Amino acid sequence: MAKEGTEMTEETEHMIEKNGAKETETVVSAGDAKEMRAVILSGFGGLNKLRVTKKAMPEPQEGEVKIRVKACGLNFLDLMVRQGNIDSPPKTPLVPGFECSGIVEAMGENTKGFEIGDRVMAFVNYNAWAEVVCTPLDYVYNMPDDMTFPEAAAFSMNFVAAYMMLFEVANLREGMSVLVHSAGGGVGQAVAQLCSTIPSVTVFGMASSFKHEAIKDSVTHLFDRNIDYVQEVKKISPEGVDIVLDCLSGENTGKGLGLLRPLGTYILYGSSNMVTGETKSFFSLAKSWWQVEKVNPIKLYEENKVIAGFSLLNLLFKQGRCGQVKTVVEKLFSLYNQKKIKPVVDSLWALEEVKEAMQRIHDRGNIGKLILDVEKSPTPLVNNRRIFGFEKHSGHSRDSCLRE
Amino acid sequence: MAKEGTEMTEETEHMIEKNGAKETETVVSAGDAKEMRAVILSGFGGLNKLRVTKKAMPEPQEGEVKIRVKACGLNFLDLMVRQGNIDSPPKTPLVPGFECSGIVEAMGENTKGFEIGDRVMAFVNYNAWAEVVCTPLDYVYNMPDDMTFPEAAAFSMNFVAAYMMLFEVANLREGMSVLVHSAGGGVGQAVAQLCSTIPSVTVFGMASSFKHEAIKDSVTHLFDRNIDYVQEVKKISPEGVDIVLDCLSGENTGKGLGLLRPLGTYILYGSSNMVTGETKSFFSLAKSWWQVEKVNPIKLYEENKVIAGFSLLNLLFKQGRCGQVKTVVEKLFSLYNQKKIKPVVDSLWALEEVKEAMQRIHDRGNIGKLILDVEKSPTPLVNNRRIFGFEKHSGHSRDSCLRE
Repeated sequence: MAKEGTEMTEETEHMIEKNGAKETETVVSAGDAKEMRAVILSGFGGLNKLRVTKKAMPEPQEGEVKIRVKACGLNFLDLMVRQGNIDSPPKTPLVPGFECSGIVEAMGENTKGFEIGDRVMAFVNYNAWAEVVCTPLDYVYNMPDDMTFPEAAAFSMNFVAAYMMLFEVANLREGMSVLVHSAGGGVGQAVAQLCSTIPSVTVFGMASSFKHEAIKDSVTHLFDRNIDYVQEVKKISPEGVDIVLDCLSGENTGKGLGLLRPLGTYILYGSSNMVTGETKSFFSLAKSWWQVEKVNPIKLYEENKVIAGFSLLNLLFKQGRCGQVKTVVEKLFSLYNQKKIKPVVDSLWALEEVKEAMQRIHDRGNIGKLILDVEKSPTPLVNNRRIFGFEKHSGHSRDSCLRE
Repeated sequence: MAKEGTEMTEETEHMIEKNGAKETETVVSAGDAKEMRAVILSGFGGLNKLRVTKKAMPEPQEGEVKIRVKACGLNFLDLMVRQGNIDSPPKTPLVPGFECSGIVEAMGENTKGFEIGDRVMAFVNYNAWAEVVCTPLDYVYNMPDDMTFPEAAAFSMNFVAAYMMLFEVANLREGMSVLVHSAGGGVGQAVAQLCSTIPSVTVFGMASSFKHEAIKDSVTHLFDRNIDYVQEVKKISPEGVDIVLDCLSGENTGKGLGLLRPLGTYILYGSSNMVTGETKSFFSLAKSWWQVEKVNPIKLYEENKVIAGFSLLNLLFKQGRCGQVKTVVEKLFSLYNQKKIKPVVDSLWALEEVKEAMQRIHDRGNIGKLILDVEKSPTPLVNNRRIFGFEKHSGHSRDSCLRE
């Protein structure tokens, strides 16, 4: 496990540079059929636990699809996995990543439903950040013709989660209001777009000020991340909101419940507050994860309120709800084809740039989704640092030349 | 407040007889325009706190409708009110009752929307158990032509609650499964009927054995009240159910959450376990009400579960959601007119028989709704006891000759 201590930021930055310099050496050719490149997490901890290495080429078992990966999605959850700050973490070393897009290269024995060459989007229970992935049939979907690979990798987790929370857990209808933390993130942008498919839905969103210009059209009322959002929402809507989507957890649960109108629904779908900085001990964070305020059902009864938790990964990989997710994906692809929704891609990164990408999502520098582009070459190092074409600004990137 | 102690049952039975004998003397003529008969709760406590008395005739304020009451609904909640075992109980003496049906007799100044003589169903914030009721316009609905007054009084609370829980909180859809405690009660029967309007919904219900014959057609799987329902449901559906409707509270919250399938919803809509017997101190019960097991949002997140509370009275009278309820009532009346739903009336009682009616609901002797029929004369006393035509059997009535 990673070292604790206040020195970790410095150490981590050092590791980025050092490992960044090394990475170009460890890059292997994609042409070798017995091996493939993959991002490896050697143990739980800081960014220094990540590296790109060769791995044996996976072959599909019965019921599985082998995919030549083009793009992978990077989620806040991947940071929590890296820190081991999740419920029953798997053993390391492991290949992180839960979603990808690519081309079908082979099928397991007696496995039907896809043709070699099909363009697909897929969920994977780890192992997505690699050149080749094998995953069961039920987790693979043919992509719409117009969808790019980065879009597909940006689509799966965020849009499915946003859709299921809004329409299957919370029952979003005309005239309702929705509060979303991290309005600029992948889920936040998916939520905003899906809300716009229903008439007269008001979206309250929080985002760092530097993102406001870029996302202001997708959110009705945009607040700065650091303000007292409870007070601000109440100024505009004294009765509160119908749906609160919270990926922060901690004290925000109580605040979110307090903001609900009667029959409103609070949904906890993450706990990014538990990853407050590389400088903090993640043991203390794991502890606070379990110290979230508990809810009295009688209070819900008196106030006519609903509280829900939503974890797409558990739904898919622990609870076997692929069928329900498939139905949702079909509805979402239909909305995509009607041009009602479109994934926002923040930036594309080579596998070797995974640490910089993780730092960017950690710093909340992204607007929309970060994508690992498997075929991309790493941006060259200048004085042991990569020059990404966007300016670093108090830990945030002002803009991204890589955004689509 | 009522006396505590194990002797209360005996005392209460004594009071029923004594007061029963008195009641015929206190009955006043309905013809007197300055006064009306009403059930009065003189203080919180046992059945002996209830009596029928004269009260000043109420007159409608601006925005109110004056209704000549024909029938009133009796709910388990009325027992809890009688015991003072509710959140912020009002001051006594008071006239209990939250729903009635009748004929519009007058309207307040500048109040439009009804004609004198209209047959209406109404919600009232207390004061329903009387010959005449005034209530704001927003709580009054024109009844369907085919609906009887007892049906209307049996309809309002139970069907609106059942509908909102199933369709607005829990999002019931084809193929889902629902567990309802007290399947034989007013809400239970409404839930069963509404579930039958959606294809392939499985209803698991609990009821005392003597009710099984009468309600077996409305429930897919019927269990005896005293069995381990968690085990029985899991035998039939190992994955659990999609919706749990719990009016019992206490340890059933944990059991209900445990029985939920992924994305399932547990709804607490009452706490009848808190009224376990006239012999128990309701101070200790009020205490246990607040000691319901609390829920960790993180657990909901990991298990993809939803927990909700539903209180129709708070929604109507504290949270001002009349508009939403009106839409629901319209949908329900349409289902009634299509003969897809029909309130089950257990029995009709004179105002003077309110104690016996309450005892019956307390003993869970009812199948469907107990109705106070304002125009009904009390069943004559024989040896200081009323003879109701149904046999008393271990605290339950086997059947009711009064059922519609």
